[in-house]
Amino acid sequence: MGTSYTALKEECYYANMELNRLGLVIYTFGNVSAADRSKGVFAIKPSGVPYEDLQPHDMVVLDFNNTLVEGKLRPSSDTRTHALLYKQWESIGGIAHSHALYSVAWAQAQRDIPILGTTHADHLTTDIPCTPPMADALIQGNYEHNTGVQILDCFRERRLSHQEVEMVLLGNHGPFTWGTTAAKAVYNSKVLETLAQMACLTLQINPQAPRLKASLIQKHYDRKHGSDAYYGQEPN
Amino acid sequence: MGTSYTALKEECYYANMELNRLGLVIYTFGNVSAADRSKGVFAIKPSGVPYEDLQPHDMVVLDFNNTLVEGKLRPSSDTRTHALLYKQWESIGGIAHSHALYSVAWAQAQRDIPILGTTHADHLTTDIPCTPPMADALIQGNYEHNTGVQILDCFRERRLSHQEVEMVLLGNHGPFTWGTTAAKAVYNSKVLETLAQMACLTLQINPQAPRLKASLIQKHYDRKHGSDAYYGQEPN
Amino acid sequence: MGTSYTALKEECYYANMELNRLGLVIYTFGNVSAADRSKGVFAIKPSGVPYEDLQPHDMVVLDFNNTLVEGKLRPSSDTRTHALLYKQWESIGGIAHSHALYSVAWAQAQRDIPILGTTHADHLTTDIPCTPPMADALIQGNYEHNTGVQILDCFRERRLSHQEVEMVLLGNHGPFTWGTTAAKAVYNSKVLETLAQMACLTLQINPQAPRLKASLIQKHYDRKHGSDAYYGQEPN
Amino acid sequence: MGTSYTALKEECYYANMELNRLGLVIYTFGNVSAADRSKGVFAIKPSGVPYEDLQPHDMVVLDFNNTLVEGKLRPSSDTRTHALLYKQWESIGGIAHSHALYSVAWAQAQRDIPILGTTHADHLTTDIPCTPPMADALIQGNYEHNTGVQILDCFRERRLSHQEVEMVLLGNHGPFTWGTTAAKAVYNSKVLETLAQMACLTLQINPQAPRLKASLIQKHYDRKHGSDAYYGQEPN
Repeated sequence: MGTSYTALKEECYYANMELNRLGLVIYTFGNVSAADRSKGVFAIKPSGVPYEDLQPHDMVVLDFNNTLVEGKLRPSSDTRTHALLYKQWESIGGIAHSHALYSVAWAQAQRDIPILGTTHADHLTTDIPCTPPMADALIQGNYEHNTGVQILDCFRERRLSHQEVEMVLLGNHGPFTWGTTAAKAVYNSKVLETLAQMACLTLQINPQAPRLKASLIQKHYDRKHGSDAYYGQEPN
Repeated sequence: MGTSYTALKEECYYANMELNRLGLVIYTFGNVSAADRSKGVFAIKPSGVPYEDLQPHDMVVLDFNNTLVEGKLRPSSDTRTHALLYKQWESIGGIAHSHALYSVAWAQAQRDIPILGTTHADHLTTDIPCTPPMADALIQGNYEHNTGVQILDCFRERRLSHQEVEMVLLGNHGPFTWGTTAAKAVYNSKVLETLAQMACLTLQINPQAPRLKASLIQKHYDRKHGSDAYYGQEPN
Repeated sequence: MGTSYTALKEECYYANMELNRLGLVIYTFGNVSAADRSKGVFAIKPSGVPYEDLQPHDMVVLDFNNTLVEGKLRPSSDTRTHALLYKQWESIGGIAHSHALYSVAWAQAQRDIPILGTTHADHLTTDIPCTPPMADALIQGNYEHNTGVQILDCFRERRLSHQEVEMVLLGNHGPFTWGTTAAKAVYNSKVLETLAQMACLTLQINPQAPRLKASLIQKHYDRKHGSDAYYGQEPN
Repeated sequence: MGTSYTALKEECYYANMELNRLGLVIYTFGNVSAADRSKGVFAIKPSGVPYEDLQPHDMVVLDFNNTLVEGKLRPSSDTRTHALLYKQWESIGGIAHSHALYSVAWAQAQRDIPILGTTHADHLTTDIPCTPPMADALIQGNYEHNTGVQILDCFRERRLSHQEVEMVLLGNHGPFTWGTTAAKAVYNSKVLETLAQMACLTLQINPQAPRLKASLIQKHYDRKHGSDAYYGQEPN
């Protein structure tokens, strides 16, 4: 028998399984959450459970202050990061975290992913930010909460909009992505991994490859996301 | 019930699905079109529809001036590029555009792919051209039409034959390929991606790897495409 | 009809098949063993048998002095290495050896894999050690036994705990991994290959990428393995 | 109804399909042949037929002077290379040619693949030879026959045994491998591709990675192929 969170748990479950199916995570790495803004809660993957054993009813439901609402399993160890982002960024409905190879490689290299082509500009107009390593005091405090703080600080300092830039690299760690739904957050994780691999190969072929010029960045972003967008089937 | 464009739409549909099956595109990236020269039209993928949702009857039919002939969905945002190439190059019957990783990497590196071996020479006798980034005035004009103009200009300036060189890289963007049929255009996209990966690895192993010498280029091209070709089963 | 080793052979068989399924070995490369400490024996893959032909009853059972206990086939050529590690390290219950690409590449490069990120620190707190090439006298002696000696020496000299560091690279050769069970040993082989690929890509993007700082190493290791671990579902 | 070559054609067919299944060829690239020494003939893939359309009875049978014995289709364009190797090297029973990515990359780089580890030494004791580009006069003559001549010359000049070294890279072109059967030739193509990728990655991680020392080369080769070999199940 379902609860009032059954649909939310299913959304969360399918998004987690998709992250695995896309090859972005192995074993118990990674986690996806899905929020229900009307109820003020989100569902998240339980900690350390292999994808092949997951069931929709295993998802854990919490509110945005990280208080358990429903669920028998311990939630993902990264849950506090999700909770803080939901609390501060009211427009987002899903968050994904993976250990995808190329995204992690850029995070470990502590480098922003430069915008080198139109595939990148189809999704965002800036480099993909990589946060610096966390200060020791914050690591020894509420680490996962402070991971969220670090993402928020990065976006504030760089004046980035979390509605336009739906992805970040945590220095030395790996990617977090988000979106209006959990499915969109997972989509952004796959896009990020693709952009990370393209940038890596581009700089291998030409270490002096230039950034995409401003006019092309704007053109490609606008045709998908601008007020006169003409990509896709939905009216804008 | 079919229309007089049913067969053309099916050709277009299967070529698009093949582009996805070959691993050259994810999500809604990429597009393939197929032309019917006797009717003066081409069918193309609708914009922003995921491959798993595509149906043959979703394909959009237009003439070579980009006028809609049949279809309920908005055509690919790159449609004007296809239209112009069909209009100017009367021998081609199919065009494919992807965001395949290694092809995009060379395009973002703004480098021609040098002819380094016989796999390349089996398909064309020159480097694979990469166009320079488009001028700002053209970007802000009819961008997709001008993308076609840029390809035509590149071939004219370099004195390349579009019947011998069936592929190009758009600088900062990615590959366009074509051929007598949509299936052949997709084949050329896969060949291009393979040549792009081989060239990338070759220069990693030996940054001074020499171009293939003229006699070997000619030999390999001629045994497949020359007047005395002896590759394959068809009489020449 | 089974013997008293039937369950052990099945554990060993399934772990070997998993090594193959994970893409870490091809043909007859690699081998996994599983120990039964209560009986003082281990089961291991027979030598040179392709994975698709393997059956659970083909596994060979030996004691920790390398004496055959049960089995009709010749055991893996690396059996003496397994026997010595079981004899000296009483806490381990499974060992895996593969020729996975990135792990072998680091072994052939004769380089420790530096700890560059949290994916690494989730599993161990040190660089992954690579032993130096074996001395000629040892190669010409009891080679596989001496391979085990070399691993033991490496851990002793570097003051590494085989319970904390469950993996090693044999210089010029490839990876050995272990754990409390054969399945855990195989898991560690996959983790090692992932870390090897991440480190390779990281240094490609930034040859000066710094090691993970001590506070982050400790934090990530402790949240999974420390006395107050909060990762996963098991009580600690 | 079968002919006296039915079994040979089937051996050849299955070896060709395996080359494709292993990911070493796409489309119509590559070809495998199988010899029947008692009848003085070999069967080979027809030219330019996609793997999914191949049937066992499509295989073409010729003698070692390249004279057609049985078959309705035109044989592979590389047939004369196969014929010459069978004629000169009486111990071999199968030959494979592919355009596998890493093997081609080393061939295009015009570099021998150095012996860097035990995976390599498990199969051969020397670097994998890469022939220089062919002289123009030979290219314009009987090209495919001369390709065979070039392989024979390379082995003679370097004093390599074709029974110990069952693989070669043709400079600018790609790999040829052989063995006592067609299946063994295909196995060697997969091993070569693996060694090519391992060597490429090794030198990426450490451009000064040393060659494997002589004592380890001998040890690993001998335990598989020496007079006291103890690898595998067959008595030596």
